[in-house]
Amino acid sequence: MVNGIERPLDLLNQSKGKEVLVQLKGEKQFVGTLMAFDMHINTVLDNAKEMHDGEVKKNIGLTFLRGDTIIFISPASTSSHKK
Amino acid sequence: MVNGIERPLDLLNQSKGKEVLVQLKGEKQFVGTLMAFDMHINTVLDNAKEMHDGEVKKNIGLTFLRGDTIIFISPASTSSHKK
Amino acid sequence: MVNGIERPLDLLNQSKGKEVLVQLKGEKQFVGTLMAFDMHINTVLDNAKEMHDGEVKKNIGLTFLRGDTIIFISPASTSSHKK
Amino acid sequence: MVNGIERPLDLLNQSKGKEVLVQLKGEKQFVGTLMAFDMHINTVLDNAKEMHDGEVKKNIGLTFLRGDTIIFISPASTSSHKK
Amino acid sequence: MVNGIERPLDLLNQSKGKEVLVQLKGEKQFVGTLMAFDMHINTVLDNAKEMHDGEVKKNIGLTFLRGDTIIFISPASTSSHKK
Amino acid sequence: MVNGIERPLDLLNQSKGKEVLVQLKGEKQFVGTLMAFDMHINTVLDNAKEMHDGEVKKNIGLTFLRGDTIIFISPASTSSHKK
Amino acid sequence: MVNGIERPLDLLNQSKGKEVLVQLKGEKQFVGTLMAFDMHINTVLDNAKEMHDGEVKKNIGLTFLRGDTIIFISPASTSSHKK
Repeated sequence: MVNGIERPLDLLNQSKGKEVLVQLKGEKQFVGTLMAFDMHINTVLDNAKEMHDGEVKKNIGLTFLRGDTIIFISPASTSSHKK
Repeated sequence: MVNGIERPLDLLNQSKGKEVLVQLKGEKQFVGTLMAFDMHINTVLDNAKEMHDGEVKKNIGLTFLRGDTIIFISPASTSSHKK
Repeated sequence: MVNGIERPLDLLNQSKGKEVLVQLKGEKQFVGTLMAFDMHINTVLDNAKEMHDGEVKKNIGLTFLRGDTIIFISPASTSSHKK
Repeated sequence: MVNGIERPLDLLNQSKGKEVLVQLKGEKQFVGTLMAFDMHINTVLDNAKEMHDGEVKKNIGLTFLRGDTIIFISPASTSSHKK
Repeated sequence: MVNGIERPLDLLNQSKGKEVLVQLKGEKQFVGTLMAFDMHINTVLDNAKEMHDGEVKKNIGLTFLRGDTIIFISPASTSSHKK
Repeated sequence: MVNGIERPLDLLNQSKGKEVLVQLKGEKQFVGTLMAFDMHINTVLDNAKEMHDGEVKKNIGLTFLRGDTIIFISPASTSSHKK
Repeated sequence: MVNGIERPLDLLNQSKGKEVLVQLKGEKQFVGTLMAFDMHINTVLDNAKEMHDGEVKKNIGLTFLRGDTIIFISPASTSSHKK
């Protein structure tokens, strides 16, 4: 189920084009399609939605997230609260 | 719809001359035309407006934003709350 | 019981494939299988669970954790509250 | 109206000798004449005034501002609340 | 009583294999045997115990502590509250 | 009145041996004679006094201030609240 | 009275073997004999005492202080509250 993850960024590479959940510092949370990232974990999401308690709070569309505000990035398909 | 975004900064490059929404740490939010940015995500906006709950709070005009206070930058045309 | 730990990252290397407890700044806590890490302590966990007061709060599945939000990482097998 | 701004620091270069508004983290705000800046956005203002709700709170005179406390720098002439 | 400490890390070197008190930002405190450290002050403790007001709150066992959350590290044998 | 300030550190160089006001993060404020500084804005003050609301709170004497806690440094002679 | 201080670290060099007051972020304060420091201002104190409102709160003994939590370091002999 988890193959080819030698380094942490491998997971982000495998998640390109897929829906991810991005948790920011200060309780902000986004769901969107991971388009790109770099070594600073700067990230571009498409169809980004700001979430609040599992509800869509705002549609942001395409967005650039600065890496240093990110706590974690998780492929949405693997989290049980999506099933 | 999303083409040519290989790296996160590609989105910022595509957004030059267009209106963007910039979310800062500490709840400050700006809308303005993206004039320039660098690898630290230092950013220049023209016709910048400080927003509060979707309302214009202050016209700032041309402004230089230091990158390390930025959480996200989103092209205004892609967010549904602009429609 | 503790062998071959010359440098701090040696412990993380020995913990690959095993369950670890990851404490983040701001009281967030995860338990999961350590898949990968790098020198920034960016970390990938599989079967990650967000914990709250020792209870599972949410199943996150596979997740990428940015290193700079991590306080400590502890192999679950060595902590007495797991026995 | 906005010419020759290729990089963010170009705006600061164009603003030398002119009045700028400098917003710091923690709600401090200064108005003064921009004398100098460097790549860390360390900045020297002349005739600096600490502002509070648009009122002059204190005359600081010449002052050196460390870059990492700065949120934004805006040429005063472009902001509508100066008109 | 204090010999051979030319540089700060010399104290940590002398403390290897001994019990230390580690104070983290945000009031967390650990006691444990110092196994390893690096130039970022990333640290491994064995038999780590999370302390609260001088009482053991939790046995953590082996643990990796990220350096940037550490305030101070003190060999337990030198602090008078251990006598 | 302001000559020879090409770069921000030029102001600090001109202020050596003179009284400066140093504002730290977290509302601490010092007045003292600027003895030395480096590129990190680490600073040595002589006859330093910790100030609170314009009153001397404590005489600190010679002191080393770490640069990253400094917000601004201002030659005391230029601020109107000293006249 | 103040000689040979060209650079900020010169004051720390002159203070080796002497009692210093170390102010940390978050109101913690230590008094102790300065044994060693490095360019990150990582510091070793001997006979360190944690102070609270000028009273000894705890004897810490030998201790390693991480530089990035330090606000200022002052030779105790120069501060008037020691006389």
